[in-house]
Amino acid sequence: MHPFTPHADATVSAWGETKLIQSIRRWLGTSNPPPPFGIGNDCAVLPASHRRQLITVDPVIFGRHFDETVAPRAVGAKLLKRNLSDLAAMGGRPTAAVLALTLDPRVSRDWLEAFYRGLAETARRYHVPIVGGDLAQANGVVAASLTLLGEAQGERVLTRTGAKVGDWIYVTGALGGSLASGRHFRFSPRLREGGWLAQRPEVRAMLDLSDGLAKDIHALTPLGAVPALQARQLPRHRGADLKAALTDGEDYELLFVLNKNADQGAFARAWRRAFPRLRVTCIGCFAPNGQQLATTLRIADYHGYEHLR
Amino acid sequence: MHPFTPHADATVSAWGETKLIQSIRRWLGTSNPPPPFGIGNDCAVLPASHRRQLITVDPVIFGRHFDETVAPRAVGAKLLKRNLSDLAAMGGRPTAAVLALTLDPRVSRDWLEAFYRGLAETARRYHVPIVGGDLAQANGVVAASLTLLGEAQGERVLTRTGAKVGDWIYVTGALGGSLASGRHFRFSPRLREGGWLAQRPEVRAMLDLSDGLAKDIHALTPLGAVPALQARQLPRHRGADLKAALTDGEDYELLFVLNKNADQGAFARAWRRAFPRLRVTCIGCFAPNGQQLATTLRIADYHGYEHLR
Repeated sequence: MHPFTPHADATVSAWGETKLIQSIRRWLGTSNPPPPFGIGNDCAVLPASHRRQLITVDPVIFGRHFDETVAPRAVGAKLLKRNLSDLAAMGGRPTAAVLALTLDPRVSRDWLEAFYRGLAETARRYHVPIVGGDLAQANGVVAASLTLLGEAQGERVLTRTGAKVGDWIYVTGALGGSLASGRHFRFSPRLREGGWLAQRPEVRAMLDLSDGLAKDIHALTPLGAVPALQARQLPRHRGADLKAALTDGEDYELLFVLNKNADQGAFARAWRRAFPRLRVTCIGCFAPNGQQLATTLRIADYHGYEHLR
Repeated sequence: MHPFTPHADATVSAWGETKLIQSIRRWLGTSNPPPPFGIGNDCAVLPASHRRQLITVDPVIFGRHFDETVAPRAVGAKLLKRNLSDLAAMGGRPTAAVLALTLDPRVSRDWLEAFYRGLAETARRYHVPIVGGDLAQANGVVAASLTLLGEAQGERVLTRTGAKVGDWIYVTGALGGSLASGRHFRFSPRLREGGWLAQRPEVRAMLDLSDGLAKDIHALTPLGAVPALQARQLPRHRGADLKAALTDGEDYELLFVLNKNADQGAFARAWRRAFPRLRVTCIGCFAPNGQQLATTLRIADYHGYEHLR
C-alpha cells in the first residue's frame, strides 16, 4: 500500500492534529495506557524501576526500510520488533515505548491506521505500553522513530564486551536471505532467549545480528583475536548461500560468546530443554591473532551493511 | 549554514557509519558516558530509578523547524531544550537522552559537527547524559528526534488535569514574537521553576506553552468552565501584540493553575524570593460556562499553531 493518497479528504492533513491524535489513541487501544501514563501530557509518567534500565531507538523510513509493496501493518510491527531485538541482545524485557512520527501531509489515514494497528498488535503481544509520542510534518517524508525502554530480566545485563581469546561463538536460528524472503518483517525478536542467555554465567557477550555476521562480529571480537569461523557450520536459511549468510543483514538472531572452559554439551542440553524449537549453533571460536587454520573463513573478504554509504 | 554540501568529500557519506559514530562520540565528549552507559551497545544501560519517571520525544526537522539561516549549534541546542521544556512542565529533571538522526547523504560533516557540539554544550549545562542513538539515511531529509527521560524532582508530578472552576491562571515570563525574534532558539527551559511549582500544593495543573496560549489553555480547562482572561494583563514581549501573545507559539513559558482558595499574595512573595529575575503573572481565571464578563478576551477568536494543517 502506498502511504500517499491523491484524495485530499483522505489525508492526515484533512483531519489535522487534534482529530488525528484522538484517532491514534483509538487505534492503539489498550496498548496506550490512560494519562498520565499514556498520551495526553507533556511527558508520559512511568513507574519507578528498581532494576537497571535499558534504552534504544530505531526508525523505519519510507524508501529506506519499506516501500509501497509492504503492508503498513507489517511496517508498524517491524518498527517495534527491531527495537525489541536490541533489548533481547542485552537480556532485557520491555517496559515502555514512545513514537516520533514525521509525515508528509499527503499520507493517507488508511495507511496510518493500518500502521498503528500493526504496531498496537505487536505491542500487546510483547507487553509494551506505547506511552507517548510526537507528530511532525515534513514534505516527502514518512518516518517513524521508536524509542524503547526496558529493564534487565534478571541481575545481569549482557553487553558486547567480555569475550576472550579461545571463547566459542554461537548463533541462534539460521542466517541469510532475510530481505529477499521478507523474513525481516516476519521475524520474532529473541526476547525469551536473550533473557535466558543473560542469566547463564558461561555466556560472556552478546548482540543481535542486524548488519550481517561479517560486520557485526567485529563488535564482539576481543583485542588480539580474530573470529575463526567454519563455513560449513554456519546455519543458513534455505536458498541462502555463504555470502548471504555473512552479509545480508537483518537476521535479528542472537550472536553470543561462550566461555572457552564452558561445558558445551551441558549448555546445548539446557538450551534444548528451554527452547526445543529453536536451534543454537557453535560456529567457531576467537583464535589468537595469526593462528587461524587454513579451513577458517576469510571473514575480511565479506562486508555487512554499512549505513550512510 | 546549509546542511548540504556540494563537495562530495565533505559529506557524511564520504565517511560512512563507523567513522561517523567515532566522530559523534568525540563531538559529544563528556556528555556521552562510556559504554555500557553510553553509545556502543544495542541498548544503553541506565541506573535503577526509585522515583517515578517521565518520558517525552520531540524532533527538529530541516525545512520545518529550522532552515539554512540558522546556526547548526542553535539547532542542536533547541532540540534538547524543547524536550527539557516538556519535562519542566511536569516538574521533572532530566536523567538521559537518546537521539535518532535521519540524514541525506549530502549533509556536510561541518554542519553535523556544529549541531552535535551545540547539543553537547546544552546537555552539559543541564546535566543530561546523551546515552545513545541511531543514524539512518533518507534522501532530502535532515531530521533529529530526541527522546528525553527524566524523573520527578520531588514527590509530586504535575499534569494538565486538576484545574477547577474558579481557579487562577498564571504564566511565567512574557509571550509572543518568539519565532520572529529568534527567541525560540535562545529560550531557557523553566526546569527549576517547574520543579518548584510542582512542590507547591496550591498549584493544581501545568503545561509549557508551545503552540500558543489560545490553543494550549484548552488542555488545562476543566469541564463546565471557560478561561476568562483579561487582555491587558497578558505579559507580552516588546513588539508582540495581543494576537502574537495568544497565537505565535514556541513561548516555552509555563502556564499553570492556582487553587482558587490560595493566598495569591503569599504565593507571589514566595515566587519572588525563589526567582527574583523572572516574573509570574495572574492572567485570569476559569469562569463557569456562560458567566464570562464583557471584558473577557474572546479566546475562541484566536487559534494557536495546528500541526499537520
